[in-house]
Amino acid sequence: MDTVHRATEPVGYSLPLSPSGLSSMITPPPWHFTGDVVMVDYRVDPAAAERFLPPGLSLGADPGAAAAVFADWQWCSDSGAELAEPARCQFGEFLIFLACEYRGAPMARCPYAWVDQPVPMARGWIQGMPKQLGVVHQTRPRPLGRAGAALTSGTRFDGVLSVFGHRTARAGVTLTERTEVRPALHDVPLAHTRLFPGWLPGEKPLADLVASEVTDVEFGEIWTGEATLELSAEGMDQDFASLAPVEVGAGHVFSYAETLRGGRLLD
Amino acid sequence: MDTVHRATEPVGYSLPLSPSGLSSMITPPPWHFTGDVVMVDYRVDPAAAERFLPPGLSLGADPGAAAAVFADWQWCSDSGAELAEPARCQFGEFLIFLACEYRGAPMARCPYAWVDQPVPMARGWIQGMPKQLGVVHQTRPRPLGRAGAALTSGTRFDGVLSVFGHRTARAGVTLTERTEVRPALHDVPLAHTRLFPGWLPGEKPLADLVASEVTDVEFGEIWTGEATLELSAEGMDQDFASLAPVEVGAGHVFSYAETLRGGRLLD
Amino acid sequence: MDTVHRATEPVGYSLPLSPSGLSSMITPPPWHFTGDVVMVDYRVDPAAAERFLPPGLSLGADPGAAAAVFADWQWCSDSGAELAEPARCQFGEFLIFLACEYRGAPMARCPYAWVDQPVPMARGWIQGMPKQLGVVHQTRPRPLGRAGAALTSGTRFDGVLSVFGHRTARAGVTLTERTEVRPALHDVPLAHTRLFPGWLPGEKPLADLVASEVTDVEFGEIWTGEATLELSAEGMDQDFASLAPVEVGAGHVFSYAETLRGGRLLD
Amino acid sequence: MDTVHRATEPVGYSLPLSPSGLSSMITPPPWHFTGDVVMVDYRVDPAAAERFLPPGLSLGADPGAAAAVFADWQWCSDSGAELAEPARCQFGEFLIFLACEYRGAPMARCPYAWVDQPVPMARGWIQGMPKQLGVVHQTRPRPLGRAGAALTSGTRFDGVLSVFGHRTARAGVTLTERTEVRPALHDVPLAHTRLFPGWLPGEKPLADLVASEVTDVEFGEIWTGEATLELSAEGMDQDFASLAPVEVGAGHVFSYAETLRGGRLLD
Repeated sequence: MDTVHRATEPVGYSLPLSPSGLSSMITPPPWHFTGDVVMVDYRVDPAAAERFLPPGLSLGADPGAAAAVFADWQWCSDSGAELAEPARCQFGEFLIFLACEYRGAPMARCPYAWVDQPVPMARGWIQGMPKQLGVVHQTRPRPLGRAGAALTSGTRFDGVLSVFGHRTARAGVTLTERTEVRPALHDVPLAHTRLFPGWLPGEKPLADLVASEVTDVEFGEIWTGEATLELSAEGMDQDFASLAPVEVGAGHVFSYAETLRGGRLLD
Repeated sequence: MDTVHRATEPVGYSLPLSPSGLSSMITPPPWHFTGDVVMVDYRVDPAAAERFLPPGLSLGADPGAAAAVFADWQWCSDSGAELAEPARCQFGEFLIFLACEYRGAPMARCPYAWVDQPVPMARGWIQGMPKQLGVVHQTRPRPLGRAGAALTSGTRFDGVLSVFGHRTARAGVTLTERTEVRPALHDVPLAHTRLFPGWLPGEKPLADLVASEVTDVEFGEIWTGEATLELSAEGMDQDFASLAPVEVGAGHVFSYAETLRGGRLLD
Repeated sequence: MDTVHRATEPVGYSLPLSPSGLSSMITPPPWHFTGDVVMVDYRVDPAAAERFLPPGLSLGADPGAAAAVFADWQWCSDSGAELAEPARCQFGEFLIFLACEYRGAPMARCPYAWVDQPVPMARGWIQGMPKQLGVVHQTRPRPLGRAGAALTSGTRFDGVLSVFGHRTARAGVTLTERTEVRPALHDVPLAHTRLFPGWLPGEKPLADLVASEVTDVEFGEIWTGEATLELSAEGMDQDFASLAPVEVGAGHVFSYAETLRGGRLLD
Repeated sequence: MDTVHRATEPVGYSLPLSPSGLSSMITPPPWHFTGDVVMVDYRVDPAAAERFLPPGLSLGADPGAAAAVFADWQWCSDSGAELAEPARCQFGEFLIFLACEYRGAPMARCPYAWVDQPVPMARGWIQGMPKQLGVVHQTRPRPLGRAGAALTSGTRFDGVLSVFGHRTARAGVTLTERTEVRPALHDVPLAHTRLFPGWLPGEKPLADLVASEVTDVEFGEIWTGEATLELSAEGMDQDFASLAPVEVGAGHVFSYAETLRGGRLLD
């Protein structure tokens, strides 16, 4: 049998496997991120939020606290090689965060997430972040001109998400003042469920409750302001609709960086 | 602890998990497909092909046989609900197939695949098909007019793939005659490696050699013809480049349907 | 002055001008088209329709008659060269037609149009068809499999349009029977206003009322059926909203080809 | 005839015309722009450059001087309304500039341009800028983190353009120092040919040599550095290929704002 002559088998951190491993769509962590964030605090029905929490997580000290987050990212692996390819190293993202608690420690649960590039989508599934593909646009700081968006009182930052051609989310933040306070739900660990769906007869899915391990967090200037938020149920299901805002709180605009190193098992 | 009051936990065949399971990005199999195919047989260096085969698979009776396949698909779950959403139920695909053998049975190995929609990409990862996101266009049969593409001798069908803005593949088939012979590499089972990358400290990836279970195969009119094929290494790695055509064979244009029901473990 | 030495100046049917003229984005007419159409007859408020008609056009014999048309096209110039490039020669389109009359002759006016490729958009502006860029998807005939869409009684064909991430139009046709009757608003000349906006100080725009000159019309099998149609004003203006359906009529599914040769001046 | 009862006719600065004029795809100038620019000076064969100049323009004092410009823009009309819609008010652009002269005044000619949004494409055609649709990505300044791109010596900024799935242009600038010197070809008026192609029998195209009228120019920090530039002829014509770099000069990274107010006729 000819296979006995092979010194190697195809390898890779992810598919596609290939002789050298270079074809792997995903590079192994750590992954370094830097981005501009437009974030809106809001509140959902606590009972609705609770239905999104797996065993092990509870609503915690502030039931119903939630956030909608637009972020415009640039990322790279340890080699930094991706940075030379702006078509690969940039993506837009929209996330929903729900406040929760694990063994008394405050965390955030991400029930829905959309990105506009396939690599971060696939990376989401590896870590348990439920990233789908959508169309994301947001205002970024731009210092010059009448069409600019300076980081100053009165400037408005917007974010919009479309999913399969439906306008699904829209957020707006009009800056009022600079602050040193980090937005609460952007400053706690994320608790995800890693899930590998079953495919073989009778197979149960692999499902782990994990927390993301993040280092090298940096916040740039943090601005706060008045916010608006609309989530549309058109084209979405009743579960997404159950997380509609019952109250909209403050908005936050800031730049941010972190390194995502892997996960640790909860429970 | 509040979680004891919950009657349910979030569920779903895939992420995102949600109270009812409706938010799952992927519906459970079976998945029904119907498509138009433009396919080109070609040959690669057998030693290069072998380096893409995992233990358990060998080159088989025709070492170096390969095919490049463009397909324009429509799909649905058992409910058929997706068919009402043309933005969701259609996608384009480009595949490479390598001839191989498992315990004496001819099979095909798919070392590279690109689709232009996220749902088939994620579905690929569940079954072990290494689908990435690309831009795919191909000629489809069109009976009318000077701009048409009738299924008749002399008509040319083309397919093009771009990946991150690089033209990666181009195939052309000029029809010569109708045939009853099914293209060999489109008529054997596929042997995939299901891979769930490691994320936890020291974790080994889940990796299974599996075969796809397909039923309800239908071929429409099959046309054969003269073919061209170019695979470009620009923007790709040396592993992809090692599968460049050393010889180009016949082309095939046909419509095709199948139902993909799940996988079975090999070994 | 060096320019006196030049034998040539840059040329082209359209921009970009270049030494040989090969860089012109648009090839000169005639342009040949072949496509699959999903069309829904409907009625609008006749007064609203009339406000979209320029002097010279009147509502005609059937005030308020309108149609929404999804079409999936392939096109080429006389050379046919574009057909070898499936990324260039295909596009999706959504049109609204309003019934009207010019000097007693029935015509159609297209107040709104969207395509998903830049070449047909620019070509629209040359002929006076108000084409913008949108995301268009529609069901095409597919004979095989459970996910197919056979041209037979009971099959449903859908079309969807999204504009800047808003779902703007949705049509559905469930086939009931084959017919020989050509859909009325797809079988009359189109009356457009060619408009070249002013740019120089005090310049008045060039504006001509023209009719499109079409030859080599072919209809394939025509199927009729029950239809639904929704036009959404979300993200659109009050003028678009004024053409909302007050009644939805029959649907039509057919393939079609034509050659567009240029325009003739009306008035 | 019913048209005598109409008080109004459909209006608009551009197509689509509509009762109120609100449907016009393009708002009338002025248009305000703010952007981040990655620019590379280079040299082309002067004879090739000259073949792109219409009568009235000559090569001027520095024959063969050229520049490749990637820009990431945000724009708005006088109302500023577009700024609330990040999906509408942002676009990426790639331009080529050729040095030229009009009656002794230095100007720039833009033989090729690509943008990634339809509104700036159509606006280009109104002013005579030959904008086509492409896929544009570029590095923007990002102050934080290992994946960042700080405005400091040693940071690299890249830009890539793809057209119909071919990688057409790639530029890179590695910053060396801050400067007060404005890049020459980004600081002169642009001379365009406004062109409205013929459509009626025997019609000659409208063609005017015009200069753009720009006010409110602002430059942010200007950084200069070492540059690379590749233009690929794959998928392009011989005219584009004739402008390939024969020498690559300095690179520039800066932010920039301007207001475009209209055009004035040359000659």
